Formats: sequence, C-alpha cells, structure tokens
Amino acid sequence: MKDFFKLISSSDFVSLFAGFTPLEQETIPLAKALSRVLAEDIISSEALPPFSRSTMDGYAVRAADTFGCSESETALLTLIGEVAMGTSGQAFALRPGQAVRIWTGGELPQKADGVVMVEYTQPFDQETVAVYRPVAPGENVIRAGEDYAPGAAVLMRGRRLRPQDLGVLSGLGITSVPVFRQPRVAILSTGDELVPADQLPPPGKIRDINSTTLAALVDEAGGLPIPYGICDDDLDSILAVCNKALATADILLLSGGSSVGRRDFTLEVFKALPQTEIMVHGVSVRPGKPTILARQGNKALFGLPGHVASALVVFHLFVRPLLRQYSGLGVTLGLQTIRAITEQQIPSAIGREEYVRVRVTPQEKGGLPLASPVYGKSGLLSPLVRADGLLPIDRDSEGLDRGTESTVILFP
Amino acid sequence: MKDFFKLISSSDFVSLFAGFTPLEQETIPLAKALSRVLAEDIISSEALPPFSRSTMDGYAVRAADTFGCSESETALLTLIGEVAMGTSGQAFALRPGQAVRIWTGGELPQKADGVVMVEYTQPFDQETVAVYRPVAPGENVIRAGEDYAPGAAVLMRGRRLRPQDLGVLSGLGITSVPVFRQPRVAILSTGDELVPADQLPPPGKIRDINSTTLAALVDEAGGLPIPYGICDDDLDSILAVCNKALATADILLLSGGSSVGRRDFTLEVFKALPQTEIMVHGVSVRPGKPTILARQGNKALFGLPGHVASALVVFHLFVRPLLRQYSGLGVTLGLQTIRAITEQQIPSAIGREEYVRVRVTPQEKGGLPLASPVYGKSGLLSPLVRADGLLPIDRDSEGLDRGTESTVILFP
Repeated sequence: MKDFFKLISSSDFVSLFAGFTPLEQETIPLAKALSRVLAEDIISSEALPPFSRSTMDGYAVRAADTFGCSESETALLTLIGEVAMGTSGQAFALRPGQAVRIWTGGELPQKADGVVMVEYTQPFDQETVAVYRPVAPGENVIRAGEDYAPGAAVLMRGRRLRPQDLGVLSGLGITSVPVFRQPRVAILSTGDELVPADQLPPPGKIRDINSTTLAALVDEAGGLPIPYGICDDDLDSILAVCNKALATADILLLSGGSSVGRRDFTLEVFKALPQTEIMVHGVSVRPGKPTILARQGNKALFGLPGHVASALVVFHLFVRPLLRQYSGLGVTLGLQTIRAITEQQIPSAIGREEYVRVRVTPQEKGGLPLASPVYGKSGLLSPLVRADGLLPIDRDSEGLDRGTESTVILFP
Repeated sequence: MKDFFKLISSSDFVSLFAGFTPLEQETIPLAKALSRVLAEDIISSEALPPFSRSTMDGYAVRAADTFGCSESETALLTLIGEVAMGTSGQAFALRPGQAVRIWTGGELPQKADGVVMVEYTQPFDQETVAVYRPVAPGENVIRAGEDYAPGAAVLMRGRRLRPQDLGVLSGLGITSVPVFRQPRVAILSTGDELVPADQLPPPGKIRDINSTTLAALVDEAGGLPIPYGICDDDLDSILAVCNKALATADILLLSGGSSVGRRDFTLEVFKALPQTEIMVHGVSVRPGKPTILARQGNKALFGLPGHVASALVVFHLFVRPLLRQYSGLGVTLGLQTIRAITEQQIPSAIGREEYVRVRVTPQEKGGLPLASPVYGKSGLLSPLVRADGLLPIDRDSEGLDRGTESTVILFP
C-alpha cells in the first residue's frame, strides 16, 4: 500500500536539522584554515604584541620631559642610543631628560612611555635632540597586550575563519587550529537514461547534469563532494552503492526522482537501508515538492528532484543549512539576501511557497535594485544560468504586484 | 635627493589597473572550474536537451486527439507501447488516435506533441487509455534545444562559473573549459624584527603576521599565494628574492614598509629591479597612505604598509581589483556592499578618503542595519577581527552624523 505523507513547510523542514549534531573536530595547519569553522574557543596564552612598540619612526621618551615644549621653546633630550629593529629596547632604561632613537615597530626602552615623531624633532648636536612638540603618555605606542592580553578570548567556537583571524592566530604562535571536520557528501545520479558528461548519448539518453552541478554546489558550500557517478534504476545496485557511500559520507544526495515512479523508488531504496528513518516525503515548496529526507543515525539522505533546476533550489534551501549545521555554523542559510523591487507582476499559487528565479538589475536613479522573473519550464537549466537569485513568495500569497519590495536570496 | 611624489586618489589608483592585461588562458577539467573565469565564449555545438522530452509521467499523444475531451466525454486512445527510460521514443510514430506510455525525461515518439499526465487518464482496457483532460500542443514537453539550440551563445568570456553553469556545460558534453590562468602572488615580509609564526620570538622580535594574512586574502580572492617567508632589511637579499619571485609571480606583495625608513627602502628595492617603473608612491587613503605600486611589464609590485591592519585595507581596495583584472573579471572590487545607518557620529579628516572599520548589526524593528565604528590604533589587529566591513568617507567630508545612510563594504 502506498503511504500518504503530509507535505511539510520549508521552515518545518529546516527545523529538523537542529536534530543533527556538528561533526567531530580535527586539527589542521593554520595555512589551510581559511573559511573553516573553529571547534574550540581560542584563548590567548601570551600578549599580542609581546612588548610595547613604537608606531612611528622617532624618539622614545619619557612623555613628561616633552610637556610644554614648542617650536620656540624646544625640549633638549640626551640621546643614549638607538633601538635597532629586532633588538631589545628594554636593554635601555631612560632616565629623566634622555631619549632613544626608535623605528616603527621597535620595542620601547624601560621607563619610556611615548614616542616623538621624527618630523617634530631636530638634531641639536651629536648627543642631543631638540623636540618641539609634546607627546602625551602612550602616544605613538601600542602597549604590550593591547591587541590581546594573556587569557583573552580571541576567537570563539563556531566562527568561520577569515584572513584577519588567521593573522591573529599566527601572531599568537598558534599554527594549528581545531576545526569541525568538513561534511563529506556522496552524490549519486540514478536513471537508465543517463550517460556520463564525457560520452555522446545514444538515442533516448542524455548526459548526467546533476552530478557536476551538485558537486559544485557542495564544494561552494564548504563540503567535500564524493562522486558516485550514475546508477541504473535497479534496487539492488542502488542499495549497494548507497550502503558503500554511507560508510564514509555524512550526506547522501540521490537525484533522479522527479517522476512519480522514481520518487516512490527512492523511497523504497531509503526504506530498505538499515536503521534508516524517513523524515520528510514532500515539501510544500515550488520547485522542490518531491524532495525526500531520511536519516541514518547522524547521517542524512536526500532524495532530490531529478530536474536539476529544482534540485539546485532544494540544495540551497535544505542541503546547505544542514551542511552548515554539520560544519558548526548552526542551521543557517548562509546566502546573501538583498531587498529589491519587483519589475513586473509575479503570480504565485496559494498553498505553496514559491521560489521564483529572478534577475537583479541596479536602478539607474539609485534606490533598490529591480527583480525581474526569469521564466522557463522547471526542467530547463537556462533560466538558472540567467538568474541572479531566488525571490520567495509565501504560501498564502497569490503573487506580488509590480513595484513590491521583496527579499531576494542571491546565488553564491 | 629624495623624490617627491603626489598622493593619488583611490579611484586614480584603481584606474591604473586597466593598463594591465588579463593573464593567458589555460584549459582545465570541468570538475575544477567552479569560480574560474571563462576565457572564451562557449557556443553550443548541439541541442540541449538533445531530443524532445516529457516533463511528466503519462501518455505521449497527438494533442489534437485530446481536444474537447472531459470527464464526461473521454478521449479513447490506442496504446501502442511504452518508451522505457533510456530507450528511443522516436522508434514509435503516432498515428491519429494512438498514445504511448512515457515517463518523466523520456523521449517523445514521432508525431507526438504533448503529454497527458497519468493523473488525467484511466486505463480503459489492455490496449486503450481514456483521457479526460485535453493537452495543448507542447504541453508537458521540453522541446529539443529548448534550453540551448545548436549555435546558441551559452556562456560568455569573462563569466565567473557558477554551479548551474558547470551543469549546462556537462549537459553539452563540454568537460574541459578555457579559463584565464589564476594570478600567482608572491608574498614577502621584510624586517629584521620578524620571526616565523611557529617560532618563539626573542626580545625585540615578533612573529610575522602579514605572510599568513596576505596568503589567506590572496586565496580568498581567487589568486595563488606563493609564500617567500621573511627577509631581513638588506637590499641585496631582498633584491635577490624579488628577482626570483618575479620570474614566476604576476604580483609581488612586499610588506614591512610602514615606517618612513622602510618605505624609502622598498622604493629603493623597486627602483633597483630591472625594467621596473614606479607608478604610485602614496595614496590619499586612510589607512593605506604609504602604499607603493610599481610595474615590471605586465607584472605588478606592491609595497604594502607594514601594519597588517592597513595592509588588509590596501589589499581589498587595490590588490583585489588587480587580481580580478588579471583573472578576466575586469577592474572591479568584487566585494559585497550594503547600505547601513551610522549608529554614532564618525569624524574624519578632510583631504583623505577614510575607510572606517565598522560592525554591522540588524535593527530589531527592520529597516537598514546599523554600522558602528570599531575604533583602535591602526597597528592593532583586534578591531579588524571584530569588524564586519569598511565604511568609506570621502575626502571632502569632515565625518558623518549619527543616523546617516552610508555604504558599507563587507569583508568576504
């Protein structure tokens, strides 16, 4: 007997992902850590910078020695040496009335608390410098630990690492970092009609588009695609590949099930897998209705629509948030959204959330950009190539009038 | 004698990049082509899809045979077979009154011009199907070449390839693509005070932060970083490394020149390199003033500020657009910008464009997000870690009042 499943809403679908736990952590070299997600808080074990540094070329002084000086009444300070770059400034200790030549980044001498820029000085004689502008204590100096003191929380678990974050870690001598493992995503296209992209299809067959598209989507979203190629519509063969894939993968993407027969077949495959529970069978989203989600422990199995244009939308709406959850970023879309104005009326069917492919063009006179629908049958790929993103229309709306301000989810 | 250079504006700086030409092209496998930039137009040499396909499970018919049918007056059509998936539908030729069973994605028989969904049919007897809803010609069918006809322009030179683009290419059997070569960027930190990030710095020395940060910035912007480590402030040593680096690199990033002495030293290095012309020596931007640009043929040499916080801003404003020009994307910033409202007054100095580090927070009541400055000395890295982007203030402005709508350039 055929099971009846209730179509669920996209928000109910996404909320299921909170039940999946982030992947285990691994330690990787800092140089490979861009865009990876921290699995532990990073606490500074030392001061950054490690010593008080000059931010200017000039003279390290006791600031009080310069108070009140001016062009007409210079402060004459005795030069007791120079802090050459990379040498210890602390080797010097300033007594009142003394100064030390210093360069940008150089370590301040003991008792020095300010740096006079070279522009505000004149050599007086071999051992004396004339200062004609006072400095305040701390002026032109970065104090030891002013960036990060020992024990400071530097970067927190769940943070996606940016170039400046890697810079801080290198400054603190942290050259390997604990991050969440990247999700491994097995990709399998099913269908007797498919041939690999590098083959000339015989009559009635076409090249597999989904494998390439899904691998690129996974890659872009920070996952590791594992291609399993094409499998004929044969239960035992598909089960064998799925079992093999699930031995290592965190997510299995099975595509090819747009058709009623195929969709039921995907369901049959998922039900025949060990310890696998069907969680979603149909979602009230267009395109994307025939989507299936199953779960095997902490692994997720998706039955994606066979039309790649629909599969791409389902990937962005549902696969991507789970990839982010696995990666430690939480259940989030992770796509840029903008506000735009509809350039024409966009009709929509009541009862289903609709994700309309749109082009976004800036308005010449400024203001919000214009969103124009890119129409085309759902099986066509060219509208997706022409589109910049998706404009969601909620299930209770019959559509949007021309000139309506809306959100557009931009394709990455 | 010291040369005097005029500080140039950021727009004059960027406009210099139009004089650099995109790198030569290379052909790479489709599976590696995500985010790469096409170096040639792609013209379809065949039709996609290669044949007319059903978009539904149902019956391929001559649409005219269904005209006028209804639930009370069904059209009875003679079943002459089934197009099994992956077999040739053209093996069948429909005569008037005939139908063929077909599945989603199946090839239409000869003379068929529509597909009746299975939901609108009833089996009548073994050889006959009753249709109770008419279809229009072309209904539930994607025509051969409806996505791309032979000879159609599919994707144009200069396009950054997205997942759906790769999908189309795989559908057309194009499994290797001509793209612009990725720019190679040599990164060299100079300074007697620097030690590598994995070493404990002795007194007066600090770890090299710039190498790690710049490599990540290059990586993120689509270039290939080539680390050359740290070089002491010695003209001959630096010249030797620069010559070696420029033998293979397209861009050389020399950092360490915030200080007046160092800046002049970088200039000396660039002038001592063969066939090298100084193009920029100082830019009226804060932070970033001490930036130097030189040119050796089609290669670019940057002298970056030694403060990594300034170097990062210069990278985004000036190195990134050149990377994009080399990559075939044109002289563009390539960073997301949003509109935001200043949360507090932000003062700025007349005469210099200022790029203020800001945090961006959504407003609870909706509307534009708020931008709050993240202050801190220019040598500090922690403000960059806390900031989401840069808010530009033009050179003729004394600052922005609280509540001013502004552009924010978001960090990638």
